[in-house]
Amino acid sequence: MSTRQSPGTSPRFSLNQLEQRDDFVRRHIGPGTPQIAKMLSDLGFDSLEALIDKAVPSQIRMERPLHLPPVLSEREALHRLREMADRNRVLTSMIGMGYYGTVTPGVIQRNILENPAWYTAYTPYQAEVSQGRLEALLNYQQMVIDLTGLEIANASLLDEATAAAEAMTLARRVAKAKGSAFFVDRDCHPQTVAVVRTRAEPLGIEVIVGDPLSELPDTGLFGLLLQYPGSSGEIRDYRPAVEAVHAQKGLAIAATDLLALTLLTPPGEWGADVCIGSAQRFGVPMGYGGPHAAFMATKDAYKRQTPGRIIGVSVDRFGRPALRMALQTREQHIRREKATSNICTAQVLLAVIAGMYAVYHGPDGLTTIARRVHRFTAILAEGLRRLGFEVATERYFDTLQVKVPNRAQTLLMRARDAKINLREVDAHTLGISLDETTRRAEVEALWRVFAADAGERLDIETLDEAVEEALPSELTRSSSFLDHEVFHLYHGETEMLRYLRRLAEKDIALDRAMIPLGSCTMKLNASAEMMPVTWRNFAHLHPFAPLDQTQGYQQLFEELEAWLCEITGFDAVSLQPNAGSQGEYAGLLTIRKYHHSRGEAQRDVCLIPTSAHGTNPASAVMAGMRVVLVECDDSGNIDVDDLKAKAAEHGERLAALMVTYPSTHGVFEAAIKEICQAVHDRGGQVYMDGANLNALVGIARPAEIGADVSHMNLHKTFCIPHGGGGPGMGPIGVKSHLAPFLPDHPVIAGVNPAAGEAGTIGTISAAPWGSSSILPISWAYIAMMGGAGLTRATQLAILSANYMAKQLSAAYPVLYSGPDGLVAHECIIDTRVLKDDAGITVDDVAKRLIDYGFHAPTMSWPVAGTMMIEPTESEAMRELDRFCQAMLAIKAEADAVAAGKLSAEDNPLINAPHPLAEVTAADWDHAYSRAQAAFPVESLKQDKYWAPVGRVDNAHGDRHLVCTCPPLEAYKEAAE
Amino acid sequence: MSTRQSPGTSPRFSLNQLEQRDDFVRRHIGPGTPQIAKMLSDLGFDSLEALIDKAVPSQIRMERPLHLPPVLSEREALHRLREMADRNRVLTSMIGMGYYGTVTPGVIQRNILENPAWYTAYTPYQAEVSQGRLEALLNYQQMVIDLTGLEIANASLLDEATAAAEAMTLARRVAKAKGSAFFVDRDCHPQTVAVVRTRAEPLGIEVIVGDPLSELPDTGLFGLLLQYPGSSGEIRDYRPAVEAVHAQKGLAIAATDLLALTLLTPPGEWGADVCIGSAQRFGVPMGYGGPHAAFMATKDAYKRQTPGRIIGVSVDRFGRPALRMALQTREQHIRREKATSNICTAQVLLAVIAGMYAVYHGPDGLTTIARRVHRFTAILAEGLRRLGFEVATERYFDTLQVKVPNRAQTLLMRARDAKINLREVDAHTLGISLDETTRRAEVEALWRVFAADAGERLDIETLDEAVEEALPSELTRSSSFLDHEVFHLYHGETEMLRYLRRLAEKDIALDRAMIPLGSCTMKLNASAEMMPVTWRNFAHLHPFAPLDQTQGYQQLFEELEAWLCEITGFDAVSLQPNAGSQGEYAGLLTIRKYHHSRGEAQRDVCLIPTSAHGTNPASAVMAGMRVVLVECDDSGNIDVDDLKAKAAEHGERLAALMVTYPSTHGVFEAAIKEICQAVHDRGGQVYMDGANLNALVGIARPAEIGADVSHMNLHKTFCIPHGGGGPGMGPIGVKSHLAPFLPDHPVIAGVNPAAGEAGTIGTISAAPWGSSSILPISWAYIAMMGGAGLTRATQLAILSANYMAKQLSAAYPVLYSGPDGLVAHECIIDTRVLKDDAGITVDDVAKRLIDYGFHAPTMSWPVAGTMMIEPTESEAMRELDRFCQAMLAIKAEADAVAAGKLSAEDNPLINAPHPLAEVTAADWDHAYSRAQAAFPVESLKQDKYWAPVGRVDNAHGDRHLVCTCPPLEAYKEAAE
Repeated sequence: MSTRQSPGTSPRFSLNQLEQRDDFVRRHIGPGTPQIAKMLSDLGFDSLEALIDKAVPSQIRMERPLHLPPVLSEREALHRLREMADRNRVLTSMIGMGYYGTVTPGVIQRNILENPAWYTAYTPYQAEVSQGRLEALLNYQQMVIDLTGLEIANASLLDEATAAAEAMTLARRVAKAKGSAFFVDRDCHPQTVAVVRTRAEPLGIEVIVGDPLSELPDTGLFGLLLQYPGSSGEIRDYRPAVEAVHAQKGLAIAATDLLALTLLTPPGEWGADVCIGSAQRFGVPMGYGGPHAAFMATKDAYKRQTPGRIIGVSVDRFGRPALRMALQTREQHIRREKATSNICTAQVLLAVIAGMYAVYHGPDGLTTIARRVHRFTAILAEGLRRLGFEVATERYFDTLQVKVPNRAQTLLMRARDAKINLREVDAHTLGISLDETTRRAEVEALWRVFAADAGERLDIETLDEAVEEALPSELTRSSSFLDHEVFHLYHGETEMLRYLRRLAEKDIALDRAMIPLGSCTMKLNASAEMMPVTWRNFAHLHPFAPLDQTQGYQQLFEELEAWLCEITGFDAVSLQPNAGSQGEYAGLLTIRKYHHSRGEAQRDVCLIPTSAHGTNPASAVMAGMRVVLVECDDSGNIDVDDLKAKAAEHGERLAALMVTYPSTHGVFEAAIKEICQAVHDRGGQVYMDGANLNALVGIARPAEIGADVSHMNLHKTFCIPHGGGGPGMGPIGVKSHLAPFLPDHPVIAGVNPAAGEAGTIGTISAAPWGSSSILPISWAYIAMMGGAGLTRATQLAILSANYMAKQLSAAYPVLYSGPDGLVAHECIIDTRVLKDDAGITVDDVAKRLIDYGFHAPTMSWPVAGTMMIEPTESEAMRELDRFCQAMLAIKAEADAVAAGKLSAEDNPLINAPHPLAEVTAADWDHAYSRAQAAFPVESLKQDKYWAPVGRVDNAHGDRHLVCTCPPLEAYKEAAE
Repeated sequence: MSTRQSPGTSPRFSLNQLEQRDDFVRRHIGPGTPQIAKMLSDLGFDSLEALIDKAVPSQIRMERPLHLPPVLSEREALHRLREMADRNRVLTSMIGMGYYGTVTPGVIQRNILENPAWYTAYTPYQAEVSQGRLEALLNYQQMVIDLTGLEIANASLLDEATAAAEAMTLARRVAKAKGSAFFVDRDCHPQTVAVVRTRAEPLGIEVIVGDPLSELPDTGLFGLLLQYPGSSGEIRDYRPAVEAVHAQKGLAIAATDLLALTLLTPPGEWGADVCIGSAQRFGVPMGYGGPHAAFMATKDAYKRQTPGRIIGVSVDRFGRPALRMALQTREQHIRREKATSNICTAQVLLAVIAGMYAVYHGPDGLTTIARRVHRFTAILAEGLRRLGFEVATERYFDTLQVKVPNRAQTLLMRARDAKINLREVDAHTLGISLDETTRRAEVEALWRVFAADAGERLDIETLDEAVEEALPSELTRSSSFLDHEVFHLYHGETEMLRYLRRLAEKDIALDRAMIPLGSCTMKLNASAEMMPVTWRNFAHLHPFAPLDQTQGYQQLFEELEAWLCEITGFDAVSLQPNAGSQGEYAGLLTIRKYHHSRGEAQRDVCLIPTSAHGTNPASAVMAGMRVVLVECDDSGNIDVDDLKAKAAEHGERLAALMVTYPSTHGVFEAAIKEICQAVHDRGGQVYMDGANLNALVGIARPAEIGADVSHMNLHKTFCIPHGGGGPGMGPIGVKSHLAPFLPDHPVIAGVNPAAGEAGTIGTISAAPWGSSSILPISWAYIAMMGGAGLTRATQLAILSANYMAKQLSAAYPVLYSGPDGLVAHECIIDTRVLKDDAGITVDDVAKRLIDYGFHAPTMSWPVAGTMMIEPTESEAMRELDRFCQAMLAIKAEADAVAAGKLSAEDNPLINAPHPLAEVTAADWDHAYSRAQAAFPVESLKQDKYWAPVGRVDNAHGDRHLVCTCPPLEAYKEAAE
C-alpha cells in the first residue's frame, strides 16, 4: 500500500490500513504486488484465486478460511514469546541423565548459531558448494573418533536414545551372533531404555535389562548396550561383559560421555564395537530437550552398515583434496527399504557447534574443564559424607547418587528453593550431576540444602586439598586425542572468528542465492523467528525439569499444537518426533498400535507408491511392516487401479498406505480422496507424508483429504532453518482414533494426555517434546503470518512454481502436471534432453549451475535424469528470473555442444564448476574462454561465488574411504 | 595450562588452577604461551617483564599492580551485566525531545548490528576494501538529501545537538553576513541549545534564543537555527524568518525530523540552507542516549566547508564507478587547525542501520509509518480534548503539549504507574510524543491516565473516523523522495539479507584479517562484549528517563568510571564526550574554564608538537585557543628545549600542552615527566591525548606521568568496535582540580556531581552520558581481563610491535625507537626506500597489500611516505608473520623493479589492487603473470580477498563531486 501523497489528492487512510499488522507477510513473501500481477499475467490469470481454482482440484479445497489468531507484527510476536519465556523458570540443573549445563562460546553463538550463512544452508549433497560445513563436520567426526577411541564416526544422529536404537539395529545387521536378544545395562538413562524398547518391538528383538556384569546370559545375544559412566554416575570396568558378548559373536555398544572421555579410557580401547552418545554438553544449550547432535562411532569394518551421514575426504577434478558425504549408497534415499536406517535429517548445525567447541578449547581446554567438573564432584561428595550422608556412587566422573532415606522429596524441594534441580531417583535416593557451569557457590548452596549449617562446617579450599580423584585407576585415559592441527590453531577468539568466516565463505546458503530444492522447501528463516531460540529462558531448561518450571514451554506447545491441528484438520499432535523420518516412523507405529488394539495384529502390509521418498519404505520396515509398491501412471499419478488391486490382494493384512500430497511429482492428484477411501474400505489407514504441506496450508487439509496421520516438517513449511542438514522437526498429527497411541515418555508423565489402557507406541525420541527450543520459530512464523498470510504464502508458492515452469518450458520439458497444465508448488523439468542431444548429464547441469552462483535443484528424484524445482513463496521474482536465465543459458550452452560449436570433450558444462584457481591460472587450455567459464552472465561480474574445489570424485572417495581430518601435508602436497 | 595426563605422571591440580577464571584473557590475546616465548626469544628477552623493563622508561612505570575487581569469566560478566540491566526499568517512552521508540528490523539487527563483518570494520580510508559500507553510506546520504530537500549530505555526525553546533560554525564560515550573533529558536530541544551555547562561547559567538517569527533582530545575525517540527511539537511556517536572515546574508539552519519530512515540505524547499537532525528513529535503539547517527545536509556551494565525512562517487583505474570518501582535504587529519571541524569519528554503523531502514521500508513504508504515528497523535489529541483538556499544540506531527494546570507532577506519576514516561514541560504542561512503536493500547492507557473513566468515554475507531490531519496544509509535502532503485528493491527479508551479505563481502574487516592501523588499536571486539548492547534493558531507555528507572546504567557508569580512574590515575571521569575529538574538546574547555575560574582568562596558548594528531590543533581552535607548534627532534621526540622556550615565551598566556603518550612516533619518550613539569611550572595544564593508552594500561598512568586531563578512546583501548568509522566514545579523566568543570546537562541534573559555584564548561553532547549503550562493551572488557589481564594485554601489544619491527627491519628502516632500540606498541617503517630505488610509493605498497588480503597500516602519518603499524595484543603470531611476509614480499617485488626484472611502468605494485575482473579477463597484457598479480603467496589460493574495484581515482572524484546514488545505468555503461 502506498500512502504517499499524489499531487492533487487528499489521502485518507484508516488507522486499520496504516497499522500494517501484516507487515511480516510482505517481508516473508518475495514478490511484491506488481510482481505478482506480472507473474499471474504471464500465466494468463487475473488473480491468485483464479490460479488456485485451476491448480487445485475443487474436491480437496477447504471450505473456510483458517481460524487462527489475529496476525501479529514481528515486535508483537517477540513480545508474546518473551512473555512465554518469562513463564519458564531456569534453575541450575543438576539432573544429569544426558543433559548438562554448558557454556556456548560467544564467538560460536554469534557466528554459527545466529549466522544465516550457517543456519540456512542445506544438507551438503552438492559437495562443491559445501566445503565449509563439510570441514566443520569432519572436525566433529574426528573429535568423536579421538574421544571414543574408535575408527570411524558419522556426522551426527538425532539424540542419544535414538542413537542407541540405531546401534542396536546396526549390531543386528553386522553381528555374526545367532541370538536375537539385546541386553541393556540397567544403568542406562531411562529414556534410552524406552526408545530402545520401542524400536525393538516391531523388529522382534527381545530386550533384556539387567546388570551386565552379573546378569548377562551366556547365549542368545546379538548385542549389549552399556552406559559409561552409568546414568547413576558409577564408572564400571565393563571388560568382562564385553568379552562375554564377544564370545557370543555379539557386539558391545557403549553409550558414553565425550567430556568424561578426556579422562577415562575410551570404550574403543576396552573393546566396545560401537560408541554412541550426545555431544550436547559441547556448547549446545539444553533447550528443554534439543536439538543436539548425537554421535556414533564404530569400527571401519562396519562402515557400510553405519546409519547417518558420514563425511569423507575425496579428490576433485584436479586431484586436490575435497570433502563430501561418503557412502551415500547406504542411505534411504538410495537404498529405500534396504537402507541402514530411515534417517534423513541429521543435526548438522549442532554437530558443527560441538565440533567447534572442541576446536576452540582444544584437548587441554577440554581436559581442564573435565578435571574441574570432576574435582567439584569429588569435593561435593566429600562434603556430603562429612555432613553424614552416604554417597552411593563409588567411582564417578560428574554424577553422584546420595542416599537420603525417606527424605528425597523434602530435599528435592529444599534444593528447588535454592534454585537447583536434582534428580529424584527414588524416595530414598537423589542424583546430582555437575557440569561445566558449576561454580563454588553452587556446591556450597547444595551443601546447605543437605544441612543448613553446612556453611560453618565445610570449606571448599580445605576439601580441595583433601580429596582424591574418584576415577578408577584402571580406567584412566593414557592415549592422546585431538592431535590434529585444527584443534590447536583457533584458541583465540580472533582466529576462531576468522576460521568460521573462511569456512562460511566456501558455501552457498540462503543468504547468497535461492536454493530451489524440490521437496525441501528452502524458504525464508526470518531473523525474528530465530531470535527467541537463544533466549536464556528457552535455551537453558533441562528436558526433565518439573512442569511447573516450564509453563511457558507448555503454553507454546499447546498453542502450536492447536494451530497445527487447525492447519491440517487433525485432532491431536505429538511434538516428540525430532525429524521428518521420526515422524513417519512414529506415525506408522501409531497405525500399527491401532490395529493391534483392535485385534488386527496381522495387518502389516504398507502400500507405497514407487515415487515415494526413500524414507517411506525405510520407515515402514522399521515399523515392522512389509512394503508393497504401487505403480504410478505416465502422468506421475498413483495408478488407482493398481492401488485398488493391491489393497484388495492384501485385504485383511493391509495396514497402511503411505502417500505424499501433492505428489512427489509436484502434482495435485485429483484422485486422492478416492485413493484414501479405497484404503479405508479395506480397513487400512492412510499415512500422508507431509513433505509437500507447503502446497496445502490454507487451501486444503490433509485430514479432510483422507489422511489418518501425517507428519509436518517444521523445517520445511514452518521455517525452522535447515541448518546445513539439520535440525529438523517432524511432529505428527492424527485423527482422534489414533490419539491414544501417540508417544509418551518414561520420565515425564502426561506427555500424551489421551493415552488409554491399550497403551501408547512408547517413546520415539529422548526428549518428551523433541527439539523444543526451535519450536518458537514455527510458533512465530504462524503467529506473524496469520491465517490469511499462510494462505497467501501457499498461493505464492504455487504461483512461483508455475511461473518458473512456464519460463523453463521454453528449454526443458516440464514433466507431470495437472489437468489444466499446472503444477503444484514445485515442478520437474527434464534435463535428459541435453543428454540425448549433447551428452550433457543432469550432474553437469547441476555443477554448471554452481558457476552461475546457484545451488542445484533436487536431482534425479523422483525421476532419474531430471531436476525438481521448488521456489517457495519467499523468493523475489527477480531471483526466479535470475535462476531461469541461468537454466536457459545452460540449455544454450548444451545446444552449442550439440551443434558442435562447443567441444563435446571440453566444454564448460562437463568441466563445471570452474574454481578460482583454474580461472586465474596462467595457462588456459580449454576450448572456451575464461569468461565463458566463470562469467557466462554479466551480473556475475558484480557478485560471483567461487566453488573452492572442482568437481568432486565421489567414487574415488568411496573406494578410498577417509573420514578423518587429513594432515595438513595432504593439502600442501596436492597444491604442489 | 595443559591438564592432560602424561604417561607415568599423576597430575594434581588445585581447583584454583582448574577454574580458568582468566579464560577470557587467553581468548582476547592472540599469541599463546609457546608463541610468546618464541617472540621474546627472537627479541633476545626471556620474559615479558624483561622486555617491558627495557621498553618503558622506569621513571614513568607505575609502582603497583592495578587494583581492579577479581577477573570474571565471560559467563560471569554477562551475568553481572544482566543483573545491571534488570535494574533498569523500560517504560514506554513518550518523552520525545529528539529520541523516539523505533523497531530495528530483525534482519538489520542480526546482520549489521550483530555482525562482525560490519561492526569491526575501520573508517573507509582505503576505498578499495570498503565499497560495501561506502555504498551503505551513500544510501544514507541519498536518504538525507531526499528527505531534507537539499543538495548534499554528509555521512553522519555525532548527535543532533553537536550537528547544530557544527551547522552554526559552518554558517559562520560561509555566511557573507556581517553579524556575529546566532539566533536559536526557543522551540529547539534544550540539549541542542545547551551544546550550541557551549560551542559558541569560546568562539565569541553571541547566542540569542527567542521566537524566530516575532523576535528576530533585523541585523547582526550570521545564522538562524530553527526546529521543524519544534521541540514542543508545533509545526510553524518559518519562511518569513528564513527570508529575514537571508536579508542579512545569514544562513538558515533547520533542525528537523526525517520521519516527519515524509509528510512535510522539506526545509530545503522553504529556503533552509542547512538541515541537521538525528536519524535515530530510523531503526536505531535509543540506547539511553546513543550512539545514533546525526545528519547534515546543505547546498552544494558549501561542500568544501561542510564538516564530517562525505562519500562520493569516483572512478577506478578502469574507469568504472567506485566510491570513496570525498573532499578529505577539508578534514582535520589534513587541515589541522584550519579544518572545518575537529570531527574524526562519525557514526557509521548507525548511519548504515538508518540508511538500511529506509532501504527496507522504502518511501511507501516510511510514509505509512509516518501517517500512522500522525493519526495516533491526532486521535490522542482529540480524545484529550473530549476529556476536557486543552491541547496547546495546534499543528503537529507526533508531539503534543497538553495544559494540565498545577497537575503536571500528579499526571506524570500516574503515567509512570501506567508504564509510560511523559515530558514534564513545566508545572502546568506535559509533552507527549508518539512514535513507530505506538499501538492502540498505549493511546487508551494514556487517556486513562488523564481521566480514569476514559475507557467508557472514548473509542479509537470512532475518533479515527472523526479526526482530520493536523499537518499545516501549506506545509504538506508534494515532492517525491527515495526514488532511487535501491529504495525499492529490498523490501523482502530474503532480498535484504542477500543485499547485506553482498555488501559485506566487498569489505575487509577484522573478521577477515588483521588491520594493523597505527594509532587506531584495531583489537578484538569480543562477542561476549557485544551481546549486552542489544539487550532490551540497555537498548530501549530514553536518555531523559527518570534516574530511578536507570539504576542499572548508573551502576555501570559508576563502576566504569572508577575503573578508568584506577587505570589512568585520574580522580574523576566524564562519560559525556561521544568521540575522541569530543573528548579533546571537552578536556581543553575544562582547562580553559579552570584558568578562567582562577582569573587567568588570558591563558589561551596551546602548545602542540608538530607530530600531533590533526584533531589536536582543530580541537584547540574550537576551544578558543591559539595553536603554537613545538618542534620534534630527529628521533621523533619533542624538542624539550623548544618546548621550554615556547612555554617561557608565552608565559602568562600559556594555557595548555597537548601531548600524545607514547608519542605519535610510537616511542616512550623518557623526558615526558620533565616536559609536563615545564608546562606546569609556567602555569599551564597538560592535556594528554589518549590515543595510545593501549601502550600504558597496567604499566604507567597518565595522571602520574603529569597529565591533568586525558581522553580515553573506548573504541581503541577498551574494545568498542570501530563500526566502519564509528561509533566511538571519548570520555575524559581529570585530576580533582578540574573535576568541578566537567560537563553537565540541561535536562538531567547531577551529571557532574562535583560542579561548584564557578559552573561547568556546559554541555558537550546531546545525551548526559554520551553513547551509553556501548559502555557495557568496555565494562565487560575490563571485568573479563582484570588488572593482570589488562597489564598482560599491554605487554603483548608492546611485544607484538617489537616483534614485527624486528622482522620488517630486514627490508624497511624502522623510524624512531627508544634508547634501547625498542618501540612502544606501534612502529613506523620507512617505505620511502622503495620510492628511492624503484619509484614505488607508500600508496602503491598500501594498495598492493590489498592483493595480499590486508588492510594497509596507517599511511604517511605522522611522517609522509611511511607506514605506522600497530598490531595490538589480539593478533596471533601466525597473523603477524603472515603480514610481515606480505611486506617482505612487496619489498622483493620493489627490488625486482629496481633491478629491472619487473617493468617500472607495468608492475604489480603500481597496478595494485588487481580486481577479479582483471585477473580473469581473457586478455592479460601485463609484463607479469596473473599468478603474480593475484596470488603472490601460496596461501592466497586457499583464502583470497578480491577488491571489487581497481585503484580509485580520488582527484577525479573531488573534481567531479557526486555524492548521491548513481543511477544503475552508470554501472551498466561502465561495464560495457
